[in-house]
Amino acid sequence: MGPGPVNAHPRVLRAMSADLLGQFDPEMTGYMNQVMALYRPIFGTHNRWTMLVDGTARAGIEAALVSLVAPGDTVLVVNFGRFGLLLGEILGRIGAVIETVDAPWGEVVPLDAIAAAIERTAPKVVATIHGDTSTTMAQPLDGLGDLCHAAGALLYVDATATIGGMELASDRWGADIVTGGLQKCLGGPSGSAPITISDRAADHIFTRRHTEAGIRAPGMVDGSGPRIGSNYFDLAMIMDYWSEKRLNHHTEATSMLYAARECARIMLGEGLEARYARHAAASRAMSAGLRAMGLTLFGEDAHRMTNVTGVYIPEGVDGDRVRTAMRETFEIEIGTAFGPLAGRIWRIGAMGYNAMQHKILITLGALEACLRMEGYRLPAGAAVTAAIEAWRA
Amino acid sequence: MGPGPVNAHPRVLRAMSADLLGQFDPEMTGYMNQVMALYRPIFGTHNRWTMLVDGTARAGIEAALVSLVAPGDTVLVVNFGRFGLLLGEILGRIGAVIETVDAPWGEVVPLDAIAAAIERTAPKVVATIHGDTSTTMAQPLDGLGDLCHAAGALLYVDATATIGGMELASDRWGADIVTGGLQKCLGGPSGSAPITISDRAADHIFTRRHTEAGIRAPGMVDGSGPRIGSNYFDLAMIMDYWSEKRLNHHTEATSMLYAARECARIMLGEGLEARYARHAAASRAMSAGLRAMGLTLFGEDAHRMTNVTGVYIPEGVDGDRVRTAMRETFEIEIGTAFGPLAGRIWRIGAMGYNAMQHKILITLGALEACLRMEGYRLPAGAAVTAAIEAWRA
Repeated sequence: MGPGPVNAHPRVLRAMSADLLGQFDPEMTGYMNQVMALYRPIFGTHNRWTMLVDGTARAGIEAALVSLVAPGDTVLVVNFGRFGLLLGEILGRIGAVIETVDAPWGEVVPLDAIAAAIERTAPKVVATIHGDTSTTMAQPLDGLGDLCHAAGALLYVDATATIGGMELASDRWGADIVTGGLQKCLGGPSGSAPITISDRAADHIFTRRHTEAGIRAPGMVDGSGPRIGSNYFDLAMIMDYWSEKRLNHHTEATSMLYAARECARIMLGEGLEARYARHAAASRAMSAGLRAMGLTLFGEDAHRMTNVTGVYIPEGVDGDRVRTAMRETFEIEIGTAFGPLAGRIWRIGAMGYNAMQHKILITLGALEACLRMEGYRLPAGAAVTAAIEAWRA
Repeated sequence: MGPGPVNAHPRVLRAMSADLLGQFDPEMTGYMNQVMALYRPIFGTHNRWTMLVDGTARAGIEAALVSLVAPGDTVLVVNFGRFGLLLGEILGRIGAVIETVDAPWGEVVPLDAIAAAIERTAPKVVATIHGDTSTTMAQPLDGLGDLCHAAGALLYVDATATIGGMELASDRWGADIVTGGLQKCLGGPSGSAPITISDRAADHIFTRRHTEAGIRAPGMVDGSGPRIGSNYFDLAMIMDYWSEKRLNHHTEATSMLYAARECARIMLGEGLEARYARHAAASRAMSAGLRAMGLTLFGEDAHRMTNVTGVYIPEGVDGDRVRTAMRETFEIEIGTAFGPLAGRIWRIGAMGYNAMQHKILITLGALEACLRMEGYRLPAGAAVTAAIEAWRA
């Protein structure tokens, strides 16, 4: 019950046991096409270029940024937590000129502040996190794409921590690239990064296309733009691999593709609305339970992610000792925190397969017991009762 | 029965069905430490830094090169096939000055030619492929590390296509980084890249260490060297993550780690000598069988990889139609070829779980039937008989 990775859905685990296929076997390329179709509704998009990057969620982020951004390009980072800082770290390696518009940890950045920063910095790309698990805050994104496009910028959104748990509306947001990961609300293992790319972004990336020497055929024409700084993360080559051209690039990670496909099938089978409602119910229940114990939640209520809850470690309680007791006594993991929040809050997730009423209740009961062992006084049994009521609300 | 990906060992497929663990759960970090220990004998090394990069084999290559090489550094590429070209492609993105020492496809580069090229180009890094599946040739590597170190260069070896099937002797070769993949002779899925790093290379990489802002703690000191051009492929950060520091970087791909661990356990259970002998027997049997059909093998006999065999498509036979017939009639995939060999040879693998006598015999029998359907005349049954004899030899 941490902020991810979390328990995978059993169907996803079983899907990875299927035998492998050759990468250009029609059955395999058929699965690749299915994955493209399955992830479009999950991203809230009609983008043709909806697929996987073979690596963890961080690989998806770097693929998006290195393919969009050339050295010397100005990028505006919407920064409200650790993963905003990560965007800056990745962009620094690319040689981008990095501007930021910041919010304190626990808040989000108002749209008008972003608008002013775009005006001030004239970026080629605006990059933001959707939900930053380090602060448990979700940045509102409606209207941001229009702002970016009016200023001639492209919009990148990292949705690693929200995909599968909170609504992604890539088309409505006007996002040009959105990336995710399986290991949080999609209920799969880390190691595959779903990505969607707008035609606008794809056109831009194809101006940087460079087909590698080993597979170059007569008549292939490279783009005139600056070559993308990475071969592995070159989205032009990855799109060519996922297109009907099937130009060889990496060898698609077959078992992870099976996992990504099964994550999406489970999600679409449940229904997007039902799935988001289930996560919202889990969040209500967790929040109500924690408050009923007398604990204080971290961050703005209005912008709370619905799949991870930050809660202050009460005074006099050793946060790490409680986490160890939770794990050793109950086999339940809850999350520690980074940077300015290290030692100050726990982060308790309810993601994907873990966003279930019984798991919330068991976690609250366990936390109550562990807090009591630490000498913390609290109303016995109140958390579970409050959580059941909130789940039903 | 292509040059990879191939069928995974059933135990590897089952290993991926195990439930996930939190990335800092002691059980998980214990598995990470086991993986480090399990891969040392497979790489033929005592290197402390022996671990996984989360991505396909190509991710391992890029991680090695981007971490070793700074823009402007001269790198000598030993180039004898498509994957030598790939090294150049990756190095070009990094901004290296690329020199090559070349052999025609189907041959390898003599050690004295490499020595002369080192003398001529004074590289900081020498990069080579061990076995290049595009040509089915294996480059001899004994003595190369000494040559490199005497000239002040580091040696990188891509062993994607040989790891698990041919002896890797990283320490004896004097290789500073060797990388691989699971999807060929290790009998696992694509998506995880085993890597080993010498202390010499690690020291060099740590001069480029840069801890990211989101997890930076007081007292952490960065290296004075040029920052590594990628965050995801920053081996200094990846080593810090796999060390007892456990500094958060990516979220380790749990199911792929289970797969990598099981691949290694199976290999060590079989025994290194027995495993290499099995691949050699498979190669002998495949070669003998193909020759008994009247076909001609591609490339130098002396430097043939023991896990993939190149064979000329006989005149008057449509190579792609035979491949399709093999797949559709027998559910057996054999490989096509790239670049100058496209349409001229097939590449037939016998890797890992597929390097078994019965699979060789079934493949030869199927190929015989498909060739006969194409009107090619050959001595009926001779291939299987010759292969059985060669296997036993």
